[in-house]
Amino acid sequence: MSVLKQVQIAKEASIKLAALPTKIKNKALLEIADSIKNNSNAILRANEKDVEEAKKSKLSYALLKRLMLDNHKISEMTGEVRSVARLEDPVGRVLSQVELDKGLMLYRVTCPIGVIGAIFESRPDAAVQISALCLKSGNSVILKGGSEAKNSNRILVEIISKAAEKNGIPKGSVQLIETREEVAEMLKLDSHINLVIPRGSGSFVKYVQEHTKIPVLGHSEGICHIYVDKYADVKKAIGICFDAKCQYPAVCNAMETMLVHKDIVKRFLPLMIRKFQQANVEVRGDEKTRKIASGINKATEKDWDTEYNDSVLSVRIVNNLNEAISHINRHGSKHTDAIVTENKKNADVFMDLVDSASVMWNASTRFADGFRYGKGAEVGISTAKIHARGPVGLEGLVIYKYKLTGKGHVVKDYIGKNAKKFRHKVIKKLF
Amino acid sequence: MSVLKQVQIAKEASIKLAALPTKIKNKALLEIADSIKNNSNAILRANEKDVEEAKKSKLSYALLKRLMLDNHKISEMTGEVRSVARLEDPVGRVLSQVELDKGLMLYRVTCPIGVIGAIFESRPDAAVQISALCLKSGNSVILKGGSEAKNSNRILVEIISKAAEKNGIPKGSVQLIETREEVAEMLKLDSHINLVIPRGSGSFVKYVQEHTKIPVLGHSEGICHIYVDKYADVKKAIGICFDAKCQYPAVCNAMETMLVHKDIVKRFLPLMIRKFQQANVEVRGDEKTRKIASGINKATEKDWDTEYNDSVLSVRIVNNLNEAISHINRHGSKHTDAIVTENKKNADVFMDLVDSASVMWNASTRFADGFRYGKGAEVGISTAKIHARGPVGLEGLVIYKYKLTGKGHVVKDYIGKNAKKFRHKVIKKLF
Repeated sequence: MSVLKQVQIAKEASIKLAALPTKIKNKALLEIADSIKNNSNAILRANEKDVEEAKKSKLSYALLKRLMLDNHKISEMTGEVRSVARLEDPVGRVLSQVELDKGLMLYRVTCPIGVIGAIFESRPDAAVQISALCLKSGNSVILKGGSEAKNSNRILVEIISKAAEKNGIPKGSVQLIETREEVAEMLKLDSHINLVIPRGSGSFVKYVQEHTKIPVLGHSEGICHIYVDKYADVKKAIGICFDAKCQYPAVCNAMETMLVHKDIVKRFLPLMIRKFQQANVEVRGDEKTRKIASGINKATEKDWDTEYNDSVLSVRIVNNLNEAISHINRHGSKHTDAIVTENKKNADVFMDLVDSASVMWNASTRFADGFRYGKGAEVGISTAKIHARGPVGLEGLVIYKYKLTGKGHVVKDYIGKNAKKFRHKVIKKLF
Repeated sequence: MSVLKQVQIAKEASIKLAALPTKIKNKALLEIADSIKNNSNAILRANEKDVEEAKKSKLSYALLKRLMLDNHKISEMTGEVRSVARLEDPVGRVLSQVELDKGLMLYRVTCPIGVIGAIFESRPDAAVQISALCLKSGNSVILKGGSEAKNSNRILVEIISKAAEKNGIPKGSVQLIETREEVAEMLKLDSHINLVIPRGSGSFVKYVQEHTKIPVLGHSEGICHIYVDKYADVKKAIGICFDAKCQYPAVCNAMETMLVHKDIVKRFLPLMIRKFQQANVEVRGDEKTRKIASGINKATEKDWDTEYNDSVLSVRIVNNLNEAISHINRHGSKHTDAIVTENKKNADVFMDLVDSASVMWNASTRFADGFRYGKGAEVGISTAKIHARGPVGLEGLVIYKYKLTGKGHVVKDYIGKNAKKFRHKVIKKLF
């Protein structure tokens, strides 16, 4: 089947899916979880094939680990699907209700976005998680997994579709495409697909952003900063900066650049650098920083714009809060940035003026994550400036429509000399 | 100054603008209104120049009328600015507040989007209205007006900038560009400009959508439908359809196609067509429709996809509700579509399944408008599926950021064997 045909079927399915009651969606989700559990052996066999192929093609150990499934991972998968079933349905919520005039009532109601294109790498559990989130929010989804997980993805999507359809979910709500050519084809279908969610490396996300006119939800980079203010509590600063760099350096919300106020350098920086060096973090510093301690490499202009995703940190000494804010707004990726200070005013200025999805005061940037933010499930982290920003939960998979109910009302009556007046009585308004 | 330089200045201004208190923004808006009033003579003189040029270049009467200013129009302009000052500030609202753990509080707070590019045709009052909306929502704006309004736009933007700066609005918050080349340049700056709002003809909006990677808020077409159901009240149907087609045919929320259930054809269609023909509406019908009355032209496949913006209507007879819904989802522009029926179930199905920004029951599509929806001011009408949909007010010019405040919290403590547990206590949640 052509990608266009698949997407057309997905579009048709999405219309029906939009009107499905919560009960049916949840029942389908629970059945999907059961069916994955009941078919674990077949899933593991398919996954074994992928793993064998991957070993032959010398896939890196890290990717191999993400690809490999076992009973524990399968039980985690089904757990996630069940937890999506428990989340509140994001569809059909009345955001506002305004009585325009007697008998003329306007509702602003959440509804699904339509057709989602989800592209991800290696991990087959991503297929399950994204399918569950899309079903719950009433969107149909075209999945493209990593080619190294081909067999795993095929069986998982087959199980999901079957269980879904059996429970009243329209055929074609969850579909798989497999090749790069098909992805390129899909990215062209901007009149059919309403949102693309790419998960994977920065360069991959950038590729998607640059090759489609479909809105993209995600982030290509996480260049996160911590600014240690003049009024920082040194102990907190050391704890937070160490956590943000070392707790998991390979992730997008890890700190890449540390900015330090000149007046706290002596009390803070030598201690901090020693701690980093003991943890085998390569520290690269500006000229002033390199005078503070030995073993610091030179940070070039390029360093300020680099996401290391590794045990490397660039350090810069700044003269004041404004210089720190300017540095972040210029070099950051609008992902997550933090200030460490005991001065509330400085914290407020920082959080207002730093133009990032998450801004933090006296907390590690590593908290920027859907689960930690209490969303139950995460679609991804967005650095866009419209629609959804930061860690995105189910709320990012819905939009709203206006429903106006009248009794034969016409606009003519509200125009001209004896025009009726609108009441515009707000009955409910969330925002 | 190069467009890039202008946009960079706008970006810097937007950062400061984001943190300005409501009071300052409102004071600036009121001063802008005063200053426009006090400079009416200079504005009218500049406008006269434009009108003279336009007459020489034989601008159409309709465009000339939109271009021309007089004291009444100026007083309307200042009235609009004052009313924007009275609107609630959309910035700084707490959408949700969650206690992640003791002392670790997460806020989701509305904030401006950043830099808006606004492109519009002929009407100089659009420059004033958009500037006011952007200032109020804390966004800086690059304006491009119609070249035929060059002199009017220049003086208006000068007055606005001066009055704004005098009241603490950062320099460069409202800027003007003038040529098509500059627009093309601006549309390339997707890393600096966060949202483009084009207002004007469908082909113009389409041009913008096709030539930029910046998100576009707007609509290129308004192919609006009314479906007259089997259970329609004939009198209501005639009133609503006539209003939707004839009250103002040139606008985007006018009806272009009328769908009629086969079982109501005899009672409804001859009367309706006669009324349209008396009002000089050209009716184009499918085969069945043309058998009903004389003087009906043939509707071709192309008609179903055409926005006439004129006194022309296409009519199609359908076998059932589903056929009507399918027709609309296939041929419509996702703008505004209505059903006329006394059957609540059919109305609900229609409003759930029709995938449009506004769906209506027993009301004229002409109600789809920011003012009528009670928004006070309208940025435009969006047919996008993300961010903002339908008539968009100030809420479409903001996004949110997450603010996390801690007391030295680190992620390490929430991981591993003796991991602390998150509380995720919801203090406030609008959506």
